[in-house]
Amino acid sequence: MAYHLLQRDQAGAAKLAHALGEALHRLRHCVRCNTFTEDEICQRCANPQRDGRLLCVVEMPADLAMIEQTHAYDGLYYVLMGRLSPLDGIGPRELRMDKLLARATDGVVEEVVLATNFTNEGEATAHMISSLLGARGVRVSRLSRGVPVGGELEHTDSGTIAQALVERRPV
Amino acid sequence: MAYHLLQRDQAGAAKLAHALGEALHRLRHCVRCNTFTEDEICQRCANPQRDGRLLCVVEMPADLAMIEQTHAYDGLYYVLMGRLSPLDGIGPRELRMDKLLARATDGVVEEVVLATNFTNEGEATAHMISSLLGARGVRVSRLSRGVPVGGELEHTDSGTIAQALVERRPV
Repeated sequence: MAYHLLQRDQAGAAKLAHALGEALHRLRHCVRCNTFTEDEICQRCANPQRDGRLLCVVEMPADLAMIEQTHAYDGLYYVLMGRLSPLDGIGPRELRMDKLLARATDGVVEEVVLATNFTNEGEATAHMISSLLGARGVRVSRLSRGVPVGGELEHTDSGTIAQALVERRPV
Repeated sequence: MAYHLLQRDQAGAAKLAHALGEALHRLRHCVRCNTFTEDEICQRCANPQRDGRLLCVVEMPADLAMIEQTHAYDGLYYVLMGRLSPLDGIGPRELRMDKLLARATDGVVEEVVLATNFTNEGEATAHMISSLLGARGVRVSRLSRGVPVGGELEHTDSGTIAQALVERRPV
């Protein structure tokens, strides 16, 4: 992208440089959900229509966008801006667990929905958060693991089938 | 495959024709689980090590093979040899629901695990079976739906994320 801009679209390059510089100055983290915003509290957190009793924890703003796309969730979010990753020096302190704990125990939140990825780092992050919140008496849940919608067993990996068997649900 | 065999591997074609003819003569359906077998009762159903209290219902023998690969299930199976498909004239009668109902109410089975695919036909088939078995007081469960193991929200379709939210599990 950089080569293309410098060789073929210098006006675009200048525009991008300006926009990025502006964003660097203006953007900060929402004091409630930790995502990027230009205000102190982002529009989503300030929206009284959303259900403050549900708090969904995601790794990155892109994950938040994916969940919003489903139109199946009307609670609030907390964006970690990362995941546990000891090799990169990201531990509980770097993820600002203190801020999440304060947010989840504000007296309004009744359930924390862990929506970190189902990768090793995401699972470890979910495990750490559920231990911390469980110790403080907060109700914690996790997105279900299993066969994707529309999926056929024949084209599903055996790890997922094993999980779907163990976590089978009464009908 | 047919062109290749006829042009380049006539010995192979003869062998395949013979094997298929033999299979046609010898194979029949296991009286207990309905899968292909050369005996009256297949080796899996005749194995006393397997847990007769669990009965897993799958569409095809290939699905059974996928579940066996996980090594996470030691119950028995029932193979429908198809799925509900009204456009192809496959209804409850063609799927031999009477045989499945008799098998599931043999007094040993305590739980029927529905492992049909998560396609429209598979879901409709699971719904029909759970209605029929529920009316007879049999405990029925379904493989969990959700995000696959190792999956990232950013690369998961919104239908699956919505299901994973609705079917979230307490931690």
